[in-house]
Amino acid sequence: MEFDLSVVKFVVLDFDGVFTDNRVIVGEDGRESVICSRSDGLGLTRLKKLGIPAIILSTETNAVVSRRSEKLQIECEQGIPDKAARLRDLLQERDIRPDETAYVGNDVNDLGCLQLVGCPVAVADAYPEVKAHARLVLKTRGGYGAVREFCDRLAAAYEFRSRA
Amino acid sequence: MEFDLSVVKFVVLDFDGVFTDNRVIVGEDGRESVICSRSDGLGLTRLKKLGIPAIILSTETNAVVSRRSEKLQIECEQGIPDKAARLRDLLQERDIRPDETAYVGNDVNDLGCLQLVGCPVAVADAYPEVKAHARLVLKTRGGYGAVREFCDRLAAAYEFRSRA
Amino acid sequence: MEFDLSVVKFVVLDFDGVFTDNRVIVGEDGRESVICSRSDGLGLTRLKKLGIPAIILSTETNAVVSRRSEKLQIECEQGIPDKAARLRDLLQERDIRPDETAYVGNDVNDLGCLQLVGCPVAVADAYPEVKAHARLVLKTRGGYGAVREFCDRLAAAYEFRSRA
Amino acid sequence: MEFDLSVVKFVVLDFDGVFTDNRVIVGEDGRESVICSRSDGLGLTRLKKLGIPAIILSTETNAVVSRRSEKLQIECEQGIPDKAARLRDLLQERDIRPDETAYVGNDVNDLGCLQLVGCPVAVADAYPEVKAHARLVLKTRGGYGAVREFCDRLAAAYEFRSRA
Repeated sequence: MEFDLSVVKFVVLDFDGVFTDNRVIVGEDGRESVICSRSDGLGLTRLKKLGIPAIILSTETNAVVSRRSEKLQIECEQGIPDKAARLRDLLQERDIRPDETAYVGNDVNDLGCLQLVGCPVAVADAYPEVKAHARLVLKTRGGYGAVREFCDRLAAAYEFRSRA
Repeated sequence: MEFDLSVVKFVVLDFDGVFTDNRVIVGEDGRESVICSRSDGLGLTRLKKLGIPAIILSTETNAVVSRRSEKLQIECEQGIPDKAARLRDLLQERDIRPDETAYVGNDVNDLGCLQLVGCPVAVADAYPEVKAHARLVLKTRGGYGAVREFCDRLAAAYEFRSRA
Repeated sequence: MEFDLSVVKFVVLDFDGVFTDNRVIVGEDGRESVICSRSDGLGLTRLKKLGIPAIILSTETNAVVSRRSEKLQIECEQGIPDKAARLRDLLQERDIRPDETAYVGNDVNDLGCLQLVGCPVAVADAYPEVKAHARLVLKTRGGYGAVREFCDRLAAAYEFRSRA
Repeated sequence: MEFDLSVVKFVVLDFDGVFTDNRVIVGEDGRESVICSRSDGLGLTRLKKLGIPAIILSTETNAVVSRRSEKLQIECEQGIPDKAARLRDLLQERDIRPDETAYVGNDVNDLGCLQLVGCPVAVADAYPEVKAHARLVLKTRGGYGAVREFCDRLAAAYEFRSRA
């Protein structure tokens, strides 16, 4: 049976490999760029309209993450070596239960967070260990609209419940 | 039966996802780049020779859209939250009938425009909702020559009619 | 029967779609970048060792073409609206016969040159009209090592002939 | 029988085509960028924890190689026309036997090094001549996590041996 997304009240997203295809463009000056999907924006807008808060949690500190989250107007925390510990604190601070939380990730450094939440989600091209811990595996690869797909599914679950 | 493109007298194009693969390169300074296909240029040149006007309508305001449209010497309007309303005005201003107009799009924010025109077109990798509203679904993905394919088909229809 | 490449004494190459995947990265400042394959370099080095001259002919004038040809140490002519006319002059200037010349292209603006030479070559993802005029269709797409494949084949034909 | 990676004590890696997809982004100013995979970082971190030294050997001298190796905190030597000769010296300097060494490559200029070491490795999209000389062909293409896959396999072999 598919997971009922309508219980999700808080969305936490990894950045690299979720908003991007996990690749990084490296220039001669060491500056980095990443490739994101325009389609994610419309998905996050849908979440906002439904009043579902979302946040990006990233291990690395990188200006591209700040720039992308500003553009998408989504909250963002970076430079977090232990993401699971930070997520635990975050849920406590905001008084949100883990089973109301979704976490979208792609690599092994997401395992702690995925095991913590009630709705662990993996992008289509996540590492096998990550998919093994996910209750929902998206059809879309990171950086190609995976965030959009998750937001669309979540919004559809909300709309279905409100009609019921 | 396939739609007869020789009735089309005005071509309106979405930018992201049509001229591009809907992805955006984000740099550390927040500057964005997009990836277009060189092949689109030869297609738009064919339209110009046939005297068929074309215009880009984009929701967002983005310098890359201005730069690309300048390079391709195609008219461009940006920062249009309600594209369908603007398209309706545009047709009235220029005295063009909706059924003589083609609109090429890829995402749900194109639905209003697609429903307005007589020739709604979707790129090969458009969202399913968009394809469902299109009378012509291109074989080429956005950013890989979708504009070129549409221009080539339109030009072929014109040339076929003029020979008849 | 496959074309005998050992008769080729002069190699003429289109740039966009041959050295690149025909896509262009457009920045907010209008600056363009293209994506080439490192593998092409080793191929051109092989040609140089065999004493086979090669030149890039490009319709457009673009700094990226100059930069790439400098890096690869290959001759380059740009800003050539009528490439077939220029190629005809070039062969006369250098006293090379068309049937000793190979031309590698991908799009319809290469048709004139392809029809002029004895060895017309198309990249794997060339337009159908271009493939129809080619005596050799490469297995590799433009920008993914198509130039390398052609150089390797040409070098193999030379080495085979010299051993015979 | 699969090669036992637990004998490997030293890892030598080519850069272009291994850390990257062998493509290069060329700008109008001639500056180059390459596209790497974020996933490689977690793999190299695993090697470091196991005390296995790794080094990049690159024929070309390129600032992007320096920048990427700094970011990944991996040793790097560039501008090496004869990589096999340099590798032979390197092994002598560090008193490492060739049969304890792995070399990961993708193109024909890696053949000398691949023939020198006991564990020659090719990325999934290496040239056929390179694959023919490899004892291990990775499932992952260069630039899409090939380094990560090799590090994961090597770490798994070490962990298996230490448990035995």
